[in-house]
Amino acid sequence: MDLRPDADLIVHSRTPLNAEPPLKRLRASFLTAADDFYIRTHGEVPDISPNEYRLSVGGGVAKPLDLSLDDLGSGFPRARVTATMQCAGNRRADLAAVAPVSGDPWAPGAIGTAEWQGVALAEVLRAAGLRSMAGVHVAFEGFDEGETRDGWSAFGASIPVEKALGPEVLLADTMNGAPLRPVHGAPLRLVVPGYAGVRSVKWLKSITVQAEPSRNFHQAKDYKLFPPNVSAKTADPDKGMTIYEMPLNSAICEPADGAALTPGPTRLRGYAVCGGRPIARVDVSADGGRHWRQAELEEHGAGRGAQAWAWTFWNAVIDLPEGPHELVVRAVDIAGQTQPADPADVWNHKGYLSAAWHRVRVNVG
Amino acid sequence: MDLRPDADLIVHSRTPLNAEPPLKRLRASFLTAADDFYIRTHGEVPDISPNEYRLSVGGGVAKPLDLSLDDLGSGFPRARVTATMQCAGNRRADLAAVAPVSGDPWAPGAIGTAEWQGVALAEVLRAAGLRSMAGVHVAFEGFDEGETRDGWSAFGASIPVEKALGPEVLLADTMNGAPLRPVHGAPLRLVVPGYAGVRSVKWLKSITVQAEPSRNFHQAKDYKLFPPNVSAKTADPDKGMTIYEMPLNSAICEPADGAALTPGPTRLRGYAVCGGRPIARVDVSADGGRHWRQAELEEHGAGRGAQAWAWTFWNAVIDLPEGPHELVVRAVDIAGQTQPADPADVWNHKGYLSAAWHRVRVNVG
Repeated sequence: MDLRPDADLIVHSRTPLNAEPPLKRLRASFLTAADDFYIRTHGEVPDISPNEYRLSVGGGVAKPLDLSLDDLGSGFPRARVTATMQCAGNRRADLAAVAPVSGDPWAPGAIGTAEWQGVALAEVLRAAGLRSMAGVHVAFEGFDEGETRDGWSAFGASIPVEKALGPEVLLADTMNGAPLRPVHGAPLRLVVPGYAGVRSVKWLKSITVQAEPSRNFHQAKDYKLFPPNVSAKTADPDKGMTIYEMPLNSAICEPADGAALTPGPTRLRGYAVCGGRPIARVDVSADGGRHWRQAELEEHGAGRGAQAWAWTFWNAVIDLPEGPHELVVRAVDIAGQTQPADPADVWNHKGYLSAAWHRVRVNVG
Repeated sequence: MDLRPDADLIVHSRTPLNAEPPLKRLRASFLTAADDFYIRTHGEVPDISPNEYRLSVGGGVAKPLDLSLDDLGSGFPRARVTATMQCAGNRRADLAAVAPVSGDPWAPGAIGTAEWQGVALAEVLRAAGLRSMAGVHVAFEGFDEGETRDGWSAFGASIPVEKALGPEVLLADTMNGAPLRPVHGAPLRLVVPGYAGVRSVKWLKSITVQAEPSRNFHQAKDYKLFPPNVSAKTADPDKGMTIYEMPLNSAICEPADGAALTPGPTRLRGYAVCGGRPIARVDVSADGGRHWRQAELEEHGAGRGAQAWAWTFWNAVIDLPEGPHELVVRAVDIAGQTQPADPADVWNHKGYLSAAWHRVRVNVG
């Protein structure tokens, strides 16, 4: 199977395939084109025949299910959500610049937004006889295998049942109106809006309701946030904060870092995103953060209020005189929460949740 | 009426009465004693006879109500919530140190936690025939009057109906098992966990369901978050972000700023709080934020998972050698969101939502 992505993607790794779009492509449309959507895989992309595909739903449910795609199509109402998906390692490069971190050095492009269509996970869980059980976890396995410390094993994750029953969590077969591509999880993937992409298991094989979080390597041992004083040597993989919901973040997509510009009005464009809370304000600076002005928040689709699961696009025009300039962006959410200024303030040895002010250096002359 | 508070409170203003406890008193118990609870009033404390008290519920409801305290007691199930209440201006002193701001210079003591008991607002709204109406607001007026730009008028606020129907929002008559004191809103007040205290209207007179947020001065013209580039002169009071949910925050309560300590192990104690998201981690530093270690998060009541509406108490022991030290605390919530380092990064001319790292300078020798 040729997995070579569109030549415009920046490829961090071919095996497994990890790639992100240039930021200008990311900002081209509110819904990210499939060609421009970042790719994060942990192993080989499974080749699944839709006719033979089965989804197993078991564990702590009254009525275990074994569902074909036809069963899902005919037995459940269609659902849709416009949601941003982002890698827990998005913007890791900024942390790598502070001190070494593990993992691919993602720019701010390990993120994308799509209209996902499929079936609400809650409907399937109810059909399987899930009773409301506080504190229970819903675990998922994919048909893919990822590399762990002890060799290769099925990729998996889990989410708390309270989130799993949210109407926004889908078993999706469609992305922006087109069938899901193999590299994005065809024929069926989980979509957990607001959470790190790693929990949106692709090539979905099984769903299990259980008393504890998944013991899968990628849930139990990886994708954890450690404090800055913990290193790869001292980290206990059973500890650290399990990453689910994503923090407030923002990025300048245009102009590009290092751009040579002509003097005069320059339009900055970018995104701001939060794991569920709407964005209230975006501030931009042309002098490294000493002075600020407000960017215009763009309206898309159902309006900003309805877009808590999707990013907010913003733009601002700044008059730039000759010389070097450091452009900066930061966002504020509806709780008045804002981003830390310095990547060092969020540095961690695994390089997750990089969400300091985003800075772009340009030369005008 | 003698409103002189307990002599240990730090009084910022006598008319209206605004006072906060010393931080050591704040940290004395997980549930803040009524004597130690901060007081924030906008006018005179109303003197209300419980026998004559009536709560009016009207506006966009099918069945307007006029309720006595007996009606509330006999007609609705009792409800309780352990929740932190804090002023939108808590820690304003840190912003005043950056540049002038309006309002009382609160230390980190304009906060307290209580077990509130009463009746769920949702039950009263349902009894009044509220139908589920997305985008609707529930407005409140108190029996108190506050000073506005145009003279004195009834104090009021509103909250979105989605929040109003949350089981955590109470009409409370009891604080830590004792009848509400006059200064805290007797005989009945609203308690909106996670939101700025200003929305928890005291001396509750009326509830109105309406299509728009309250036009009351304190909702429509005040308690708004403006960007740092907007001043008292340039601010349009109709603009700015209306403050509802509170951001992540933390404070060192012991030792006190300026304390003289003896060399050796020193225990730091404090709180961390977020407007609904649980606290995942608290970092402390003894060198101004260059090196960090993790504080112990204390378990109280039903356990930390159940305490999203209440603060988290933390403590840490640090060995301090002779010399001056800058102690620092910052918190991380379960979305990996953390606090900005510098008060200048959250400065605004009204001095709201001051939530940068908290710093305490001590001398050891």
